[in-house]
Amino acid sequence: MIETIALDADDTLWHNEVHYSLSQDKFAALLAPYCAAKAVENKLYETEMRNLRLFGYGTKGFVLSMIETAIELSDGRIGGAEIRQIIDSGKAMLNADIQLLPHVQETLATLCASYKLMIITKGDLFDQESKIARSGLAHYFQHIEIVSDKSQPTYKNLLAKYGIKPQHFLMAGNSLKSDVLPVIAIGAKAAHVPYQITWAHETAPDLDPVKKEYYELEHLGQLPDLVKSL
Amino acid sequence: MIETIALDADDTLWHNEVHYSLSQDKFAALLAPYCAAKAVENKLYETEMRNLRLFGYGTKGFVLSMIETAIELSDGRIGGAEIRQIIDSGKAMLNADIQLLPHVQETLATLCASYKLMIITKGDLFDQESKIARSGLAHYFQHIEIVSDKSQPTYKNLLAKYGIKPQHFLMAGNSLKSDVLPVIAIGAKAAHVPYQITWAHETAPDLDPVKKEYYELEHLGQLPDLVKSL
Repeated sequence: MIETIALDADDTLWHNEVHYSLSQDKFAALLAPYCAAKAVENKLYETEMRNLRLFGYGTKGFVLSMIETAIELSDGRIGGAEIRQIIDSGKAMLNADIQLLPHVQETLATLCASYKLMIITKGDLFDQESKIARSGLAHYFQHIEIVSDKSQPTYKNLLAKYGIKPQHFLMAGNSLKSDVLPVIAIGAKAAHVPYQITWAHETAPDLDPVKKEYYELEHLGQLPDLVKSL
Repeated sequence: MIETIALDADDTLWHNEVHYSLSQDKFAALLAPYCAAKAVENKLYETEMRNLRLFGYGTKGFVLSMIETAIELSDGRIGGAEIRQIIDSGKAMLNADIQLLPHVQETLATLCASYKLMIITKGDLFDQESKIARSGLAHYFQHIEIVSDKSQPTYKNLLAKYGIKPQHFLMAGNSLKSDVLPVIAIGAKAAHVPYQITWAHETAPDLDPVKKEYYELEHLGQLPDLVKSL
């Protein structure tokens, strides 16, 4: 029944949000002389959301939003050395080793024998390509698609591009909002594999559990059995 | 003979480098209290080249490199308000109206009647998609490819992906380094349409004019006649 399985990358194949979280902690510590940690977090999120229309998703936009927030919360008193620390923490994120999540390697090895595999990930083109290359996983995938957003039209266009019928397609990922809801809305299947942290922007209300139209997995290692059972 | 024509976007279809140039002038003026304009320009270019491996091409990386340069050249004395100006000039670039270059509209209208048209552009995914959408030109193109770099393998992979034979493919763009040399190296044809300014990183030595293997155009309006003559 399922012929093509697409996987999200960040927080589905490898750790990502944890790096943002660490950067935010360092950021809050840096701004502690000016502002309480909770207010820093709120203001940063507000700045990120305001800038999303111009910056899109990804680390570089996140760093620019941190710098903007730091200037705002310190009333311009933040110094060059502190801003340099923010840039350095962004560079550390871009340079961070790729840490695969548990079960990823063997799950992909199992699945690629029977299904066409794709990556569908959103964010910064250059950074995502670099992470995919460094992950050592690229050879499992027939197609790699880096998109600027994951909406219903995005999935519709990708399926049309590759001639995939929705009923033969399953998407697995950690974000209900990006990897699950738009996919089931176009008549394809989706598996939700939660990550330990969810970025506030990616949260979505759970569907009514009784009428749930997607599959909930505890980890990616459960995906082969799920797909086989469909 | 030619079936598919690919066009670069920035500085081929619309003005782009001029926005970078204006931002750099504002940047040099901002740093005038700390450093002479020529030294600012050199240091910024050095920082951009060092960061290219982490940031890739595009405006967000450029802004981060400007901020880093400002901190370095001012020995950390640059203030929050000045850094805010750098971020704002980057936002103005991302928000700038798309100004089409002369002849673009009518050339695309002519060519799309007889050839498959593609955009192949490098840079930031989100920013490039936004510019293509705002340009009003998207409907002329069958395929739009935003890539992180334009090398021989990039072109080879794209041609393979769409089943295009090199001898039936022509690329037109303003950069010898990105739009011309890698294209003729894989056996396809290329037309160079210079823009008024070339970013230092995109300069390439001209081929021996006697043995030139690509076509030199003064403006995009000359492209239909060239392609017809091949």
